[in-house]
Amino acid sequence: MQDYLSPLLEFLRIDTTSAKGKGAEGAKWLRDFMQDRSVNAELIPWPNTNPYVIGEINVGSDRTLLIYNHYDVQPAEPLDKWDSDPFNPVVKDGRIYARGVADDKGTLMARLLKVIELWKAGELKVNVKFVYEGEEEIGSPHAFEFLSKFRERLRGDWLLWEGSGRAPNGAPEVVLGVKGLLYVELRARTAKDLHSMYSPIADNPMWRIVYFLSEVRRPDGYVNLPGFYDKVRWLSREELEYLNLDPELLAKAIGQEVKDGLAYVRLVSMPSLNIDGALTGYTGEGSKTVIPSYAFVKLDFRLVPDQDPEEVFKELQEVASKYGLELVKLGSVRPFRTPMSSRIAQALIRAAERVYGVRPVVMPNSPGTGPMESFSRALGIKEIADGAGVVNYDSNIHSFNENAPVEDYYLAMKWAEEMIKELSSG
Amino acid sequence: MQDYLSPLLEFLRIDTTSAKGKGAEGAKWLRDFMQDRSVNAELIPWPNTNPYVIGEINVGSDRTLLIYNHYDVQPAEPLDKWDSDPFNPVVKDGRIYARGVADDKGTLMARLLKVIELWKAGELKVNVKFVYEGEEEIGSPHAFEFLSKFRERLRGDWLLWEGSGRAPNGAPEVVLGVKGLLYVELRARTAKDLHSMYSPIADNPMWRIVYFLSEVRRPDGYVNLPGFYDKVRWLSREELEYLNLDPELLAKAIGQEVKDGLAYVRLVSMPSLNIDGALTGYTGEGSKTVIPSYAFVKLDFRLVPDQDPEEVFKELQEVASKYGLELVKLGSVRPFRTPMSSRIAQALIRAAERVYGVRPVVMPNSPGTGPMESFSRALGIKEIADGAGVVNYDSNIHSFNENAPVEDYYLAMKWAEEMIKELSSG
Repeated sequence: MQDYLSPLLEFLRIDTTSAKGKGAEGAKWLRDFMQDRSVNAELIPWPNTNPYVIGEINVGSDRTLLIYNHYDVQPAEPLDKWDSDPFNPVVKDGRIYARGVADDKGTLMARLLKVIELWKAGELKVNVKFVYEGEEEIGSPHAFEFLSKFRERLRGDWLLWEGSGRAPNGAPEVVLGVKGLLYVELRARTAKDLHSMYSPIADNPMWRIVYFLSEVRRPDGYVNLPGFYDKVRWLSREELEYLNLDPELLAKAIGQEVKDGLAYVRLVSMPSLNIDGALTGYTGEGSKTVIPSYAFVKLDFRLVPDQDPEEVFKELQEVASKYGLELVKLGSVRPFRTPMSSRIAQALIRAAERVYGVRPVVMPNSPGTGPMESFSRALGIKEIADGAGVVNYDSNIHSFNENAPVEDYYLAMKWAEEMIKELSSG
Repeated sequence: MQDYLSPLLEFLRIDTTSAKGKGAEGAKWLRDFMQDRSVNAELIPWPNTNPYVIGEINVGSDRTLLIYNHYDVQPAEPLDKWDSDPFNPVVKDGRIYARGVADDKGTLMARLLKVIELWKAGELKVNVKFVYEGEEEIGSPHAFEFLSKFRERLRGDWLLWEGSGRAPNGAPEVVLGVKGLLYVELRARTAKDLHSMYSPIADNPMWRIVYFLSEVRRPDGYVNLPGFYDKVRWLSREELEYLNLDPELLAKAIGQEVKDGLAYVRLVSMPSLNIDGALTGYTGEGSKTVIPSYAFVKLDFRLVPDQDPEEVFKELQEVASKYGLELVKLGSVRPFRTPMSSRIAQALIRAAERVYGVRPVVMPNSPGTGPMESFSRALGIKEIADGAGVVNYDSNIHSFNENAPVEDYYLAMKWAEEMIKELSSG
């Protein structure tokens, strides 16, 4: 049997912490690794960032799968919290411990090794392309530009996203989209701080923010902006069936009670408005009687397909103006969702069922945000989905003692294999 | 003509900054000054604070006026902002510059000198008592205890408060009361900070505070608590007539527009609810997507006669509980108001009219807070009023270059004289 583990361990030993400007060594290793196995691979330098690595295996099919992963990792700090060196992988109790093993080198390597193996065995019936970036952990600031420029070389029918793994109930997880985001700050001012005895007649910026907030969101979570829910693509019966997760898992994850059995459905399908931070006036010990001259609040909207952050921003501007608030946009990401009926979704679901022997959990979109929509726009690929990865809910990604089960590494390979066979059949 | 200025200048040279533990020297000087002029005066030490100085001139009347002042001052810092030494008084362009000249040594000395003068001239027809404290600038923490203990010796018909002066329009100002205060902090928590992707299902403490705030106060300033306005003593026609100040003066003072001609009426007569401070989550530059686990807000209610801070607190507790908020009381002061028809109010008003030649501004209560109600309770004196003082709206009390016009010092003396004559007539 082939040694699948050694290349991964070697890859993990290379520090590719993009936040520290590291990554070039990992990119070269990856290019060489592919070229050594006769994959048509290329390293593409890009100004002021880690290079991209792209590759292609053309088997003459009229179908092409593009596989996306990233070779960079989060900073490992604080190092003293690790039980082992983050860049000296250790296999213990059936798990591999190393920075990046779950996010995203394990998934990258499982897929790459499997595709090469199928190809060498003559069993690869669809073309496969690879695109690896080295700045995902710092927000992929150049990805759109790069992908747009290499749109022709990266052309494909489907994009396989960076890699999920298992849902909290242990079932394999397929993810078909992401939520969008609109992050804003609202600011209110007056000329100067005042003694609070003036409160019967003076404007207090924080009161304006309070009334603004209580207008734009109701206590039940309903976002009260014109047309806010008009473009929401509500979940289908089939999508709801594959979201069958015990809400108690969610309650445990967040350390709060959830009010009903529909918690997962709401988490995935409902847009929301959150207060990330707010500050005004005196916040020290005890009391100070002041009408503060400045107040601000930071808010994020989580948006679902097909809501448009620009439209939400416009409506918000109307309400903000009414309260005399300055509105500043700090971030904006469009939501994205691939239909469950798409070929790549069906391939991932059926493959997962066969490999794991259970019905996978299918997230019509992640509750979190990601640049799927901009990748789709840059590449002209409409079907993007995620699966065939090694991430567990206790993989500690972005934290210390990051890990992935050795078994899941092999299962991800098998899942990739079955998925590719699904894509090429029929 | 007697030299009225020298004793004041000598008094101002003594540093009586109570926040720095200073004051005993000033108290002794004051006691000696009174005794040297044959006033029956006594210095009363009190544990852990500056001594009290009390005095009495008994002319055998059945009426007694108790005059209250404080000999301590605010810290003079920052010293580099002063144009002269705060404890080396300078007379320049008709004003005396020194720490404490307006708050409260000028008024103290004007009244004391005038009462002694009237007495020596055989023109004092009411008994006068003096009570001077040395910790007013640090909140009078021992005053209630002291006054209660010396209640019999300090017995009187009227209490003359520490001293107002001129209203912003230059007219003499009579103040007949103070607002009450209820200062609270509301706190809300969850188990831990969460990624904001959980916002469709997770509790955010700040949202609870927002809905609480928008419930207890409406955008028009109305405080929405059961029975909140039931005990409000609304202003009479006569009280409204003497509140005839141009609202533009107020607009200038606060650096904001005021919405109508009733700004002063609202400032004086309306209770209010103010946000003094609030904090939750991420308040640095840029964006962080988090559901913060902790939020708090600091609030002060300004209460008018005869609202009761304890009753307000109880109603507030009901609403706070509904939103799962912890409610902490940080301060509480009862409002107080002496009727305009009272003898001391009428005496101050008529005397001011005679001395200044204009209708005084009469504040049924100050927009600010003070311990009048607790003084009244401790002493059993129901009529307390303020006037016959030297404070101007540009006297910079509690700030640098504190000052009072020399002319106003003499006018305050005259005002005190006429008031005392009013009290003894009829």
